[in-house]
Amino acid sequence: MSSTIIVNTPVLSGAGALYRKHGLTAKTVVIFDENTRNLFRDQVIATLEAEGFRLLELTVPARETSKSLNAAYRLYATMIEAGVDRSWNLLAVGGGVVGDLGGFIAASYYRGIPVVQCPTTLLAMTDSAIGGKVAINHPLGKNLIGFFHMPELVLIDPSFLRTLPEREIFAGMAEVVKYGFIADRTFLDWLEEHFDRITALKEPFLTEAVRRSSSIKADVVEKDFRETTGLRATLNFGHTFAHGLEKLAEYRYLRHGEAVTLGMICALWLSNGLGYLSEKDLQGGLDLLARFRFPKGVIKRRFLAHSSEALLENMFSDKKKLDSKLRFVLLKKPGEAFLLEENVDDREVLKAIERARAFVATAAKH
Amino acid sequence: MSSTIIVNTPVLSGAGALYRKHGLTAKTVVIFDENTRNLFRDQVIATLEAEGFRLLELTVPARETSKSLNAAYRLYATMIEAGVDRSWNLLAVGGGVVGDLGGFIAASYYRGIPVVQCPTTLLAMTDSAIGGKVAINHPLGKNLIGFFHMPELVLIDPSFLRTLPEREIFAGMAEVVKYGFIADRTFLDWLEEHFDRITALKEPFLTEAVRRSSSIKADVVEKDFRETTGLRATLNFGHTFAHGLEKLAEYRYLRHGEAVTLGMICALWLSNGLGYLSEKDLQGGLDLLARFRFPKGVIKRRFLAHSSEALLENMFSDKKKLDSKLRFVLLKKPGEAFLLEENVDDREVLKAIERARAFVATAAKH
Ligand SMILES: NC(=O)c1ccc[n+]([C@@H]2O[C@H](COP(=O)([O-])OP(=O)(O)OC[C@H]3O[C@@H](n4cnc5c(N)ncnc54)[C@H](O)[C@@H]3O)[C@@H](O)[C@H]2O)c1
Ligand SMILES: NC(=O)c1ccc[n+]([C@@H]2O[C@H](COP(=O)([O-])OP(=O)(O)OC[C@H]3O[C@@H](n4cnc5c(N)ncnc54)[C@H](O)[C@@H]3O)[C@@H](O)[C@H]2O)c1
Repeated sequence: MSSTIIVNTPVLSGAGALYRKHGLTAKTVVIFDENTRNLFRDQVIATLEAEGFRLLELTVPARETSKSLNAAYRLYATMIEAGVDRSWNLLAVGGGVVGDLGGFIAASYYRGIPVVQCPTTLLAMTDSAIGGKVAINHPLGKNLIGFFHMPELVLIDPSFLRTLPEREIFAGMAEVVKYGFIADRTFLDWLEEHFDRITALKEPFLTEAVRRSSSIKADVVEKDFRETTGLRATLNFGHTFAHGLEKLAEYRYLRHGEAVTLGMICALWLSNGLGYLSEKDLQGGLDLLARFRFPKGVIKRRFLAHSSEALLENMFSDKKKLDSKLRFVLLKKPGEAFLLEENVDDREVLKAIERARAFVATAAKH
Repeated sequence: MSSTIIVNTPVLSGAGALYRKHGLTAKTVVIFDENTRNLFRDQVIATLEAEGFRLLELTVPARETSKSLNAAYRLYATMIEAGVDRSWNLLAVGGGVVGDLGGFIAASYYRGIPVVQCPTTLLAMTDSAIGGKVAINHPLGKNLIGFFHMPELVLIDPSFLRTLPEREIFAGMAEVVKYGFIADRTFLDWLEEHFDRITALKEPFLTEAVRRSSSIKADVVEKDFRETTGLRATLNFGHTFAHGLEKLAEYRYLRHGEAVTLGMICALWLSNGLGYLSEKDLQGGLDLLARFRFPKGVIKRRFLAHSSEALLENMFSDKKKLDSKLRFVLLKKPGEAFLLEENVDDREVLKAIERARAFVATAAKH
């Protein structure tokens, strides 16, 4: 299973012909969040109307709680009342929240209508909009209710990032760098060279970084759609640690990408501690990750303030599963990750966290 | 896509080995409605426990409104709290309500866990448990929210039907006869010969009728899973009319199978009126359908009391779509159905309904 991904500025003009080519009708439910509506609505709607589209517009609050059954319930009602049927499709214009919610609705409405993703955050462009995982949250857990629903098209316009707060840029950049670590040494070196240009949104560097990242993700997903071979699992490099940090931060005070950056620092140390990654490659990786900039205080309060034990404990997604095992993605070398099948001794994990803390504490001083 | 369908008494003993063979773990969420819980819980749970299963039991009210987002929301919570994860599967023990709701939950929990259907109504055994359509209702429309989620196994024990009210038997028999009409002349003749034995649940006739029906449905679904060739659409023989009748009956006073029986009478007349079905075959079909027994008054109040125009109007599922076309499945001869591509003149439809009314009025007198 795969989607057509187009990275271009402007990406929506010519949508009419593109939709036809992909067997999609020109009847589209467009879903925004309040921010992406304010920023992009006029431009998106004007373009689509000029291309002859029939549209229904939906807007949800710009927050994680929009990924709920309640929000879905209300949107279904609007769609049913407007007469949206199986001949329509849905376009999600926004970050991961809008993409996940829009994808969930498209997956379930009339047993599934096609979805087109138009991601507007760096995280969504390089990660959440690609691969067909869609989900909403349950008060008892994040992303628990969902499906695989591959987008027919992913339409990416990197110029949409001009308005994105810097914190979100760095959060998305975490996933970009992750792709270098797990799959592409050349890309990793290139990212290192152009890190400041990319995070300053300079072209052609920004578009190239987005293009390469989205294509690595799409490639991994296509090769292991249902997560059976362990390949797709490598996308979780740094994420086992990150989940614990996000939980400690009550899923509010730390952006996902920030947690992933810190998680990758831990994972580099663990890869080294278990004898897979050389000192030199460890150092190279850490140097790159030290270039991420997050709000003052966040690192201190949300990482350094916690004990390694507290983090480890929170890495188990569910207290009831304390008997179950943590799965780690490690690096053999930059550009080559693997899912470790064996169980890792807690002491090794704690040691890696300790070293990551020491490194971050020092790096933060500069 | 296909499921393994097993028709047998008792069907659940040996489940342990069967699950293993199909790659399913012995960790199962069992969902009942209040009736199927009272009737079958002890037997089902004892069998599964003897086979070493780890179980979580769920029960929903025995009514159509259990097919709701609200019910799903509560069941998700129970499952999350009990620590059910992706390694579990779900077993739905009940009629179409439990099967559709259970399938919906399985399709969406943790992006999908396997579902096993154990249907306990004749309708579920021959229709709703097979083919992977799962859905819940929205207050604005039936079955609008759903997915395709093929069951890994369909485990059918016809002896479960002993407790089913006669009205439900005849309602399910409508779909059985439908399979004869659309796909298998020999089966149709056999049904005619043994109609009274089957509806009296006599073996081996009952099991044979269930086996043949479920296999025809599975075959059609496998050949046209996503309803692209028109083949799967033939399963809707009689259903265009039936939907109008159900709507007129507020989805409460007429069983789906009753509406389908009446709908097939209309569809036979339409097939004949449009010149596809011979007089002789029309008469043969009508004779068979005249043998269905429904509660006194239902036919009168829910069919004969309405004008043909009212029925036609209600066959359009949505007022807003009055400009859209009705699609009809017709018979060329017994055992051979097709989806008519052309538009049918309203007058022909009204004429068919009139004739069906006259036929039913006469038949009801006997
Ligand atoms: N489906 C997947 O595979 C997957 C993968 C990773 C994350 N996710 C999900 O993604 C979500 C996080 O996504 P996100 O980081 O994009 O968050 P988000 O969607 O909340 O967007 C972040 C903020 O940026 C705003 N925004 C979006 N585009 C903007 C723009 N161009 N300019 C200015 N502001 C803009 C949004 O309104 C929001 O306030 C989480 O719910 C997470 O679970 C899903
Ligand atoms: N998914 C599909 O492809 C599909 C196809 C057709 C119908 N459906 C759905 O199926 C539902 C109707 O299914 P149904 O007719 O089985 O109704 P149902 O599930 O409501 O069952 C009918 C009644 O019989 C009771 N019952 C079940 N098994 C029994 C038994 N063995 N003995 C005594 N009582 C028993 C139930 O508790 C209920 O009261 C509708 O919601 C319809 O939308 C789905």
